[in-house]
Amino acid sequence: MTGFVSLVGAGPGDPELLTLKAAERLRAADLVLFDALVGLELITFAPTAQRFCVGKRAGRESIDQATIERLMIRAARRGKRVVRLKSGDPFVLGRGGEEALALREAGIPFEIVPGVTSAVSAPALAGIPVTHRGIASGLVVVSGHTASAYGPLLDGVLPDSATIVVLMGLRTRQQIAARLIRRGWRPETPAAVVLAAGTPEMRTWRGRLDQLTRPSLGVDVGDAPGTIVVGRVVELRTLIAGVHADDPGVVAMALSGGLS
Amino acid sequence: MTGFVSLVGAGPGDPELLTLKAAERLRAADLVLFDALVGLELITFAPTAQRFCVGKRAGRESIDQATIERLMIRAARRGKRVVRLKSGDPFVLGRGGEEALALREAGIPFEIVPGVTSAVSAPALAGIPVTHRGIASGLVVVSGHTASAYGPLLDGVLPDSATIVVLMGLRTRQQIAARLIRRGWRPETPAAVVLAAGTPEMRTWRGRLDQLTRPSLGVDVGDAPGTIVVGRVVELRTLIAGVHADDPGVVAMALSGGLS
Repeated sequence: MTGFVSLVGAGPGDPELLTLKAAERLRAADLVLFDALVGLELITFAPTAQRFCVGKRAGRESIDQATIERLMIRAARRGKRVVRLKSGDPFVLGRGGEEALALREAGIPFEIVPGVTSAVSAPALAGIPVTHRGIASGLVVVSGHTASAYGPLLDGVLPDSATIVVLMGLRTRQQIAARLIRRGWRPETPAAVVLAAGTPEMRTWRGRLDQLTRPSLGVDVGDAPGTIVVGRVVELRTLIAGVHADDPGVVAMALSGGLS
Repeated sequence: MTGFVSLVGAGPGDPELLTLKAAERLRAADLVLFDALVGLELITFAPTAQRFCVGKRAGRESIDQATIERLMIRAARRGKRVVRLKSGDPFVLGRGGEEALALREAGIPFEIVPGVTSAVSAPALAGIPVTHRGIASGLVVVSGHTASAYGPLLDGVLPDSATIVVLMGLRTRQQIAARLIRRGWRPETPAAVVLAAGTPEMRTWRGRLDQLTRPSLGVDVGDAPGTIVVGRVVELRTLIAGVHADDPGVVAMALSGGLS
């Protein structure tokens, strides 16, 4: 009797942004393999499962991809219900496709459970809409991991023709910002870095594209995952300030439980 | 006593892809204003609320944006908990930013509840990962509504430098495909159209970019929302076939409740 693997998007970090399906799969899981960026709070949704962090995190040792795939396949062959819990959405720079191919090749039944991607929700939680009528009717999402990953795409995108969102780009932000400026983006294009979105440690830096080329942004970046946003929509942040942004009155109301 | 407005992403259509927060806001709502593309099944999550469809749908009459905003504001001023339920994510081509600005201007407290965007999940539910190591490390999401919306962005993106996802582009798909070919995209670039993703009526057309320029695709497009995907990742669809794709055995297993 073969088990089943669910490749599940965990969303940006806030447990309330799990989908109903993700919560249900966690509840029923025998084994949860989770990324380092997935908050431990999420793991409590799987009280009866064995739970392992297999996470890759910038600059730290991690279990390699082949081992993760082997662990999933082995457990499924033993009849286990396996949840592979991935930060954000499994198919947005999350290697979910590779894991799906490995499962398919091994003959293990599986499913994809899409999640709330950080590419959209990290900016949103900071009050930044990635698209906005009259300002940006498109969005470019790219991995900042290496120049070969982001170069060909960013080199083509015409200045101000879209909002640019860079995931996994905290270490390369200076090169990315300089590259955009060389390609004609105005140095004063609004930019933001959203750190630890959807967690209590969330913080946002806001400035200009040319400031992203500086060695320090004056905020503690630490180990937190970061989402870089470049484009005029960043200006809307001071206007669109919901409970997550900087209106003390509204934040107080949310904290006092006025919503439920 | 002022109420509160939640601008909530409903996800692609499957009720199980609601977030926990969205489900909770619906449960507690006094008034739900929902888009035509939001499935009626989702509305059952708000059993005690007044519920109005304010949806815009291609080619049909709809309530205009100013009226929607007025309805939200008026209800909130009367102390109501209002949920504005939007297909996908409120900030991905969903006019959530405009509604947030209107609420802010009116002094109504509000929040953004990100959702599972169709731009990523519609392809995913059809077995297509929008990014995949070695094939696409970036993603372009654009509105297909008018050439002025998609032209400047699509004209810049270099062939094969990203996966292109077009939302609201069913009526303009011929022009969009022809435009990409003129900009150097190979006519044989794999392409797909995912219709009614996340609903029981979901269906997928798969072919080549040049076939998208034809008047008919040979599938009934009807009134369903559609997501167009262009790029080599579409080829992975036949390999990554989870419960939602075309492996009868796996589908049967999912339907028989083998998961829960």
